[in-house]
Amino acid sequence: MVDNMKKINIKNLLNDYSLKANALLAVYLKEKIRGARFVGKIPTEILKKFAEMMTRGKKIRGFLTVLGYRLAGGKDLNSIYDASCFIEIMHSGALIHDDIMDKDNLRRGLPAMHRQFENYGEDIGVSLAICAGDLAFYLSWDKLLHSRFSDEIILKAAKIYAKYAINITYGQSLDQVNGLERNFNLQEILKIFRYKTAEYTGVTPLIIGAILGGMTDKKKLAAIEGYGLNLGWAFQIQDDILGLYGSETETGKPIGSDLRQGKITLLVYHILKNGSLNEKLYLKSILGRKDLSQTDILKAQKFFKDTGAYQYVLNLGKNYLFEGKKTILQLTENPEIKEILESLLNFIMSRIV
Amino acid sequence: MVDNMKKINIKNLLNDYSLKANALLAVYLKEKIRGARFVGKIPTEILKKFAEMMTRGKKIRGFLTVLGYRLAGGKDLNSIYDASCFIEIMHSGALIHDDIMDKDNLRRGLPAMHRQFENYGEDIGVSLAICAGDLAFYLSWDKLLHSRFSDEIILKAAKIYAKYAINITYGQSLDQVNGLERNFNLQEILKIFRYKTAEYTGVTPLIIGAILGGMTDKKKLAAIEGYGLNLGWAFQIQDDILGLYGSETETGKPIGSDLRQGKITLLVYHILKNGSLNEKLYLKSILGRKDLSQTDILKAQKFFKDTGAYQYVLNLGKNYLFEGKKTILQLTENPEIKEILESLLNFIMSRIV
Repeated sequence: MVDNMKKINIKNLLNDYSLKANALLAVYLKEKIRGARFVGKIPTEILKKFAEMMTRGKKIRGFLTVLGYRLAGGKDLNSIYDASCFIEIMHSGALIHDDIMDKDNLRRGLPAMHRQFENYGEDIGVSLAICAGDLAFYLSWDKLLHSRFSDEIILKAAKIYAKYAINITYGQSLDQVNGLERNFNLQEILKIFRYKTAEYTGVTPLIIGAILGGMTDKKKLAAIEGYGLNLGWAFQIQDDILGLYGSETETGKPIGSDLRQGKITLLVYHILKNGSLNEKLYLKSILGRKDLSQTDILKAQKFFKDTGAYQYVLNLGKNYLFEGKKTILQLTENPEIKEILESLLNFIMSRIV
Repeated sequence: MVDNMKKINIKNLLNDYSLKANALLAVYLKEKIRGARFVGKIPTEILKKFAEMMTRGKKIRGFLTVLGYRLAGGKDLNSIYDASCFIEIMHSGALIHDDIMDKDNLRRGLPAMHRQFENYGEDIGVSLAICAGDLAFYLSWDKLLHSRFSDEIILKAAKIYAKYAINITYGQSLDQVNGLERNFNLQEILKIFRYKTAEYTGVTPLIIGAILGGMTDKKKLAAIEGYGLNLGWAFQIQDDILGLYGSETETGKPIGSDLRQGKITLLVYHILKNGSLNEKLYLKSILGRKDLSQTDILKAQKFFKDTGAYQYVLNLGKNYLFEGKKTILQLTENPEIKEILESLLNFIMSRIV
């Protein structure tokens, strides 16, 4: 068993998944583009831009859907690979709307969707991006509902999808007013993280994959939820840190966007709670300033490190990893899957630790 | 059979439907609001405003869903009334996004959703309205998927819903660039009408209702599609006329909005195609002017009547009614439903004829 001796490389597994998903998505979207041509130029253009955007994601959610299916003992890998694309389609739609709300100009190394259409005028760019996001959501339903599982199982999965998708819109709406109200607390921030990202990044794909794989054991599903939520929280914490400390090439997004928008991230929270008067004054002087320069950002990076905010957030993330690891024993006895689940948690925060 | 002698009054039937649907929607949304309270203030606020908006629609699409079910011979009226709310929820979501795109400030006699949240700032109002629309779409899925029919039938209906909903986003995207490109033609305008409104107003509810009622006969489903499409086209033509000739109280929307946005409506199309040079010059002087006054609108109303554009559009609408009526014989032999189908076509354009 030489193969089992090899350490699992999550990056390679994610790459393998991406290649498969990209091929399946290309077939699916090509067929939709063919249909849209009869309707008109604009819907065709939207779908083409969307297809290009879809080739570029890390596709961790689709990967988790397949993993959830394998946790349930599912054997029809061709069908689950195809079905798993639904959550990547939805995720891309959510990003399109998110970029409108956050006025972000860059996504996955491409202009954000609303910027891709600004040749029609700025407002029409936004309108077409709203349409593109709505379209993506409906396509995700189309993909899941036409998956090759039994009616009963698809319907069960679809109901769970609706439940979690509703929660995303709740989280997203909370995130819009984050920074406006001053009576924030840690629980409040972590709640936004939960609904805006953690649930649908970690829990939704694993649970839907498991349901599609025929899992019915409620205790096991609850354990998956526990693992997924910890994974999702760690993911969002990593995202928050990368938002300030990452590189634009790596994240595909502008650095310092949260600061410019004045959002109460965990880094900001730590200063507001524990900072000295001077530290708070400095923070106040940069938070929400749309014109922060590259130098300002570098200074802010140093500031959050020197004050211990960076380490505080990192520790929070590590704590989720630790909690997540504790759930793995309840999830599976398959040594390969066990190792994937563990490596995945490590991978989530590996870029910042 | 004294009852059968009475002429069917569509307005009363629609009112009856609205009362039932409003009661069911209130129960459904109250439960969602209860859940949202655990998440936070903003999602709760969104749901409450949405629930208020939902009490006010004419609910013709939900009514048609029940009618489609009855056409299929379905007997479980309680279940179809409940399920039919899904399309009204989706429709309200579409209007929320539509109002953002069209920058309309009024909807159903209330401020448009993005205006209802502008106390948080204009941009955040728009962001929260994007969230509210997304939420409505997911709620519509939640409602349909949890309806009390067999798994097989729900899944069949859901697949059809996905197909038509995708088309709406195509039509909506076409509508965004309507007015920007000068190589319009009648077919192009009617195509926008088809995808943006006619299909999902007329066809989608009837077909989904029929599927939920167990209809499988493809010829009958095709006949329903024919009826629904003609009804939907007539509906959109009426909507176009009311957009300029209706009253704000009646339509719940500002009068002359299409003109201000410079859209190529059928009225405009007729002038561009058949008008004299002077008529075209006058049209050019008002089309797309954001500051059209009440007097300008009155003048425009007279203009489109004097030039025959109004009559031209009316005739187009009447033609759809005529075509729609021809399909009724293939749909049912039930005299009551037959009369409803006929009265509905008459009702659609009754406010303008």
